[in-house]
Amino acid sequence: MTTTSHPSAELAAFASSLRYEDIPPAVLRRCEDLLLDTLGSILAGARSRPVLSIDKVARAMGPADGAAEVLVSRRKTSPLFAAMVNAAAAHMVEQDDVHNGSVFHPAAVIFPPVLAVGQAIGATGRELLTAAVAGYEVGIRIGEFLGRSHYKIFHTTGTAGTVAAAAAVGRLLKLDPGQMLDAFGSAGTQAAGLWEFLRDAADSKQLHTAKAAADGILAAYLAQDGFTGAKHILEGPQGMAAGMSTDADPARLTDRLGKRWALAETSFKYHASCRHTHPAADALLQVVREHRLEAADIDRVVTHVHQGAIDVLGPVVDPRTVHQSKFSMGSVLALIALRGYAGLTEFDLGLKDRDVAAFRDKVTMQLDQEVDQAYPARWIGKVTVYTRDGRELHGRVDEPKGDPGNTLSRPEIEDKAVRLGTYAGAATEAEMRSLIDWAWKLADLDRAGQLLPS
Amino acid sequence: MTTTSHPSAELAAFASSLRYEDIPPAVLRRCEDLLLDTLGSILAGARSRPVLSIDKVARAMGPADGAAEVLVSRRKTSPLFAAMVNAAAAHMVEQDDVHNGSVFHPAAVIFPPVLAVGQAIGATGRELLTAAVAGYEVGIRIGEFLGRSHYKIFHTTGTAGTVAAAAAVGRLLKLDPGQMLDAFGSAGTQAAGLWEFLRDAADSKQLHTAKAAADGILAAYLAQDGFTGAKHILEGPQGMAAGMSTDADPARLTDRLGKRWALAETSFKYHASCRHTHPAADALLQVVREHRLEAADIDRVVTHVHQGAIDVLGPVVDPRTVHQSKFSMGSVLALIALRGYAGLTEFDLGLKDRDVAAFRDKVTMQLDQEVDQAYPARWIGKVTVYTRDGRELHGRVDEPKGDPGNTLSRPEIEDKAVRLGTYAGAATEAEMRSLIDWAWKLADLDRAGQLLPS
Repeated sequence: MTTTSHPSAELAAFASSLRYEDIPPAVLRRCEDLLLDTLGSILAGARSRPVLSIDKVARAMGPADGAAEVLVSRRKTSPLFAAMVNAAAAHMVEQDDVHNGSVFHPAAVIFPPVLAVGQAIGATGRELLTAAVAGYEVGIRIGEFLGRSHYKIFHTTGTAGTVAAAAAVGRLLKLDPGQMLDAFGSAGTQAAGLWEFLRDAADSKQLHTAKAAADGILAAYLAQDGFTGAKHILEGPQGMAAGMSTDADPARLTDRLGKRWALAETSFKYHASCRHTHPAADALLQVVREHRLEAADIDRVVTHVHQGAIDVLGPVVDPRTVHQSKFSMGSVLALIALRGYAGLTEFDLGLKDRDVAAFRDKVTMQLDQEVDQAYPARWIGKVTVYTRDGRELHGRVDEPKGDPGNTLSRPEIEDKAVRLGTYAGAATEAEMRSLIDWAWKLADLDRAGQLLPS
Repeated sequence: MTTTSHPSAELAAFASSLRYEDIPPAVLRRCEDLLLDTLGSILAGARSRPVLSIDKVARAMGPADGAAEVLVSRRKTSPLFAAMVNAAAAHMVEQDDVHNGSVFHPAAVIFPPVLAVGQAIGATGRELLTAAVAGYEVGIRIGEFLGRSHYKIFHTTGTAGTVAAAAAVGRLLKLDPGQMLDAFGSAGTQAAGLWEFLRDAADSKQLHTAKAAADGILAAYLAQDGFTGAKHILEGPQGMAAGMSTDADPARLTDRLGKRWALAETSFKYHASCRHTHPAADALLQVVREHRLEAADIDRVVTHVHQGAIDVLGPVVDPRTVHQSKFSMGSVLALIALRGYAGLTEFDLGLKDRDVAAFRDKVTMQLDQEVDQAYPARWIGKVTVYTRDGRELHGRVDEPKGDPGNTLSRPEIEDKAVRLGTYAGAATEAEMRSLIDWAWKLADLDRAGQLLPS
């Protein structure tokens, strides 16, 4: 099938023709990092009610066996349902990755379908990696293209995510450029996800990632069978942007394809708390480590923050729930000082902990002109720590931990993966260590198989 | 779960609490008519390439057996995939029903999930009918609510259809009002379907009906399991209308619930041709029948039409394909004069027929002030027939055949169903007769079972 040159077609041709050899090694290694990080996120969400609901309906509607693994429940089914359940779980504990510029969470909608279809067709590790990179490059550019007006109403991870999943699976299925464009068409015309659920704290976020993954698979398999789709689904006069954006910029769709690697711009979430607490948490961690402070050494902490942090975190003075404690600057910094880490387990245990409550009251926020002016382009972390022995110590982090300029080391990624994977009891530490080995050797894998014993 | 009163909640409460006894008998009988009409449409689409593609992927991703029947391929699977494939087929030959005011094709997205879930749970015939009516009343009102601005970009049958399917299935599953509202939330946040595919004559129309049916089932089953959704998915500030309409009118959502029966406003498609040819075809049929004319008796026919008919049909003077012949006023009227019916088979055979070509050249269109001014609120059909023996005969139909004021009789519905069901060889005439019996006795059915022998 011939395709004339236009943004949808160029992006589809890129996704179709991307070769492992074309991807810089640093991008491939980051892709492995993100995959391991996602496995942790999936397992951390494995016991949550919305995920269990989606798994239950997947059992009722999908096959009782198959080539693809539902990590959440250690059973096998078809790729569509395995991806659906794993994608629902991946976004559950909000510890999966984020691309700042597109406000898009790529991992949750890309890795589950790549793994599920990869297991079904026995893909090599290099094919998995190439497919995932294709998904990131496509999805992030579509998120940027759809723009801020889109994100006001639509959950970009659901909408752009459907096409990202189709691109990744299409690459695994070796779709030619015309078929890949068909897959984009069928994915884009299924793309959905509205923010309205937030108002009621409803469960739709898990449905959005689940469906983006499943619908992307459907689109790619249909395209493989010759089922056609709109050729201008992204930028056409009745396409995604026409229907769901008022500030779409088609130039973003093909921005430096093959030169700029958007995957490498993706951030890890390090602390399991509101993003507004991360810069100060990082700055405190710096001071604590540099000066080898114990929590008991600290008299008080002043965090120098942007106005947005005060607006969001200011009202939380006496957190009553674990979720609320993730929006308490004092609670977050207490966990950093007391435990050296503010992860899911630390928050669960910290809520009733007297030491955490005591430290919380030592923390205050102050509006800082420099920090406020740099925001939101830069999220600077600044703290002043006053010690019991009378010292005044300053911490500063110019980019929050997990962002590309301050990314996680492999040991930190491993540590996070083990914590997440064992958090809900969905995997043992030994199983997580084996997943870590698997991820670091992915480029040498001959054939994707089962990841966890059933 | 309590729900405060707002349009989404009122509509969900109506769908949840609708009782068989509350539905007027005429509406129930019309629902049976529409169901039979849909079975014919599904079977007529059974051999089409896009439907076969969707069936193929459904086989790859869904279970190889189950309680729900894929009419298209005479196999059984889970309700989700049976509904997906049957819904894809239902809209294929464009002979399924339409609600004019909402520009929505309810049958294709409502009956497939109702049948599939009905078979899975062993519903009674009255439960099937009540569920279908709930789907029609909900879907049509949502289509009207989303308005013309929505339809410019979005395929209402895909978007409103997802919630309609959820409402119908939710009623079958006996969801309470709170659960039904959750089902609306999960359905609305999955609602999708863009017109962009039309530009490329791509296959997305079948995907839209397939997915509306499947996603509606998913939403309803999730809600049954306690999975929550946005409470204001239709009218909320980040809901469907906010994202996909600029002229939404929330009052339409609850327009005379329980008093106005929108299902009864639905039109059948009688002729298998462009809707702009229908009024003239009906008027010619009237003249031919009243005066017992043979085609050979007719010297020429002048059709008195609205400008839109001239715009759309005028360019088609020498149709080269079956599809194009459905947009040729002369071809359509030739089939009426020669065969008494312009159905799918008549069009297939008529393309190469010399008599059809000869009659075609006897037909002209003339702009008519009265017809043009009445359009689009009313589609008046007027023809003048000049006979070889010198008579000038006038035909006039004020409402096209199939519209509520000129609906099909049961014998006509039966005849259409047999023609559609046998058209592609997907069922025998005897099997269609047995489906007709089944439909007319639906209110007495104890338990929904298999419709066609496997």
